Amino acid sequence: MEAIRSLAVRGAPLLGIAGAYGVALAAVRGFDVDDAAVALASARPTAVNLAVGVRRAQAAHEAALAKGGDIRQAAAAALAAARQLHREDAEASARMAEHGLALLDELLPGGGHRILTHCNTGSLVSGGEGTAFAVALAAHRAGRLRRLWVDETRPLLQGARLTAYEAARSGMAYTLLTDNAAGSLFAAGEVDAVLIGADRITADGSVANKVGSYPLAVLARYHHVPFIVVAPVTTVDPDTPDGASIEVEQRAGHEVTEFVAPQVPVTGAEAGGGIPVAPLGTQAYNPAFDVTPPELVTAIVTEEGAVSPVTAEALAEVCARSRRVSAG
Amino acid sequence: MEAIRSLAVRGAPLLGIAGAYGVALAAVRGFDVDDAAVALASARPTAVNLAVGVRRAQAAHEAALAKGGDIRQAAAAALAAARQLHREDAEASARMAEHGLALLDELLPGGGHRILTHCNTGSLVSGGEGTAFAVALAAHRAGRLRRLWVDETRPLLQGARLTAYEAARSGMAYTLLTDNAAGSLFAAGEVDAVLIGADRITADGSVANKVGSYPLAVLARYHHVPFIVVAPVTTVDPDTPDGASIEVEQRAGHEVTEFVAPQVPVTGAEAGGGIPVAPLGTQAYNPAFDVTPPELVTAIVTEEGAVSPVTAEALAEVCARSRRVSAG
Repeated sequence: MEAIRSLAVRGAPLLGIAGAYGVALAAVRGFDVDDAAVALASARPTAVNLAVGVRRAQAAHEAALAKGGDIRQAAAAALAAARQLHREDAEASARMAEHGLALLDELLPGGGHRILTHCNTGSLVSGGEGTAFAVALAAHRAGRLRRLWVDETRPLLQGARLTAYEAARSGMAYTLLTDNAAGSLFAAGEVDAVLIGADRITADGSVANKVGSYPLAVLARYHHVPFIVVAPVTTVDPDTPDGASIEVEQRAGHEVTEFVAPQVPVTGAEAGGGIPVAPLGTQAYNPAFDVTPPELVTAIVTEEGAVSPVTAEALAEVCARSRRVSAG
Repeated sequence: MEAIRSLAVRGAPLLGIAGAYGVALAAVRGFDVDDAAVALASARPTAVNLAVGVRRAQAAHEAALAKGGDIRQAAAAALAAARQLHREDAEASARMAEHGLALLDELLPGGGHRILTHCNTGSLVSGGEGTAFAVALAAHRAGRLRRLWVDETRPLLQGARLTAYEAARSGMAYTLLTDNAAGSLFAAGEVDAVLIGADRITADGSVANKVGSYPLAVLARYHHVPFIVVAPVTTVDPDTPDGASIEVEQRAGHEVTEFVAPQVPVTGAEAGGGIPVAPLGTQAYNPAFDVTPPELVTAIVTEEGAVSPVTAEALAEVCARSRRVSAG
């Protein structure tokens, strides 16, 4: 759980998988599964996938007990559910990449895509190759990625630390930039599309994602550049009606006021132990996420296809399609 | 000169003063003054004040020689010109603060201003109390500043290191944030006005300033928040017609790919010696400035008054007024 809270495990899809395995682990070890589920699901408030993953393993555990299974069989059922979720996530990545690339090619028929991305959405957050990053990777493999612009993503530098690493490893042409330099790229006409992931998508299509996503959406709109969200259907939370209803996690100020070397693990709620970059006692505003309203989102790409324009109806339809597939 | 290039001396007004004192120093030491002037003026390409300050001391030096003065007298004239520039800058700060506060009170009659600022524009960049920061300070002294939102200003963290220090020292209510968190503040209605400085203002009113200013201008426009530039008339460069004609300095990538502790001076062109935060060999896009077009600028506040709306004619008029004052 500390791994989830401190972001050692992060990224919406992976949080769901970690949550499911967490429940299975509690069951295997003989802990109280319901207690563990509550604690795991509340480790981070914004990502809906975490709660979904936890609930799925918990439900499998309950069902096994209800069918008269013993504790060992129930634990095995929870583990099987977690493994199934993991497998599904990898498949969903592949399908999102396919749908996303088709959308890019449709929006930008010239090819030679120059894509700006934020935070980290690759294989480090997923059972597969990720969400937004998986689309860029598919474009790269198809020879249609001209450049991946990587936002460093303050305060925790997931772009510089993780996305740059994944891009380098994949042999992509990529360039790192400070988050605030994206404006100059847009102004220079150097961005063909923005691709980001999502931590939670509400019923109306509002997208909660890593802080810094919303300013990119506003810049993209101002410059008439497509702003594309890539996320599995599990990220859609039909029970949250709109962006205003999303609880945005506020994180500790020391993530901003201190610099922590990448080698040193970031600790959770306690003061940083990093190198101070601001005067002692400086207060910081440090929301983990921001919320982009549906009118700024060109498309939401899921494993079931792309939703564009983004409306509550279209989103509900894609979710229903997903449930039919799961049930079938 | 290394101090100018490495940003140990930085901020448009102070660069002008430093340039003038640099010429005076060269004259006092008996170096070739014209060579020194060329080298100093080209140490950084974007800030027009640097060249203006250099030229003013150089002109005083030439004039003294032309009037039959000896080398010592010419050096004294250069030094006097630098001191005069320094004095004028302090006075200009005070007048900008006055005009800026009057404008804020006019735009936001309710008082309780919540101001977002970027980079550092206080007494550390000026002979006086600065530009944008001086306006916020005047609002604070008048009891009308509710909060100063301080962008940390990547990559060199002038906001976290310098503005937060100046705000704390002045007893202002201030909060630090990552540059990309500004979007959430705008969306929450927490920003009443943006106040920034300028490194160069072109004849048409385009504003070159620290990278990250332009995205704030786009956000401010999207949220109907005033975007106010505070800069002395010397920042206006009538010889540069528009934003597209501004040469934007591209700085070394290691400012982005490595973290340098504030205690350690930032070195110039050579590789950083900092803590790497991105994979080895990562290329970075690191423009020092961006350019905001006049249509996104609500007002330009100078020591001669505020220009709003920002047009080439209004700007030329303020510059002419300034020349009349100087000549009078």
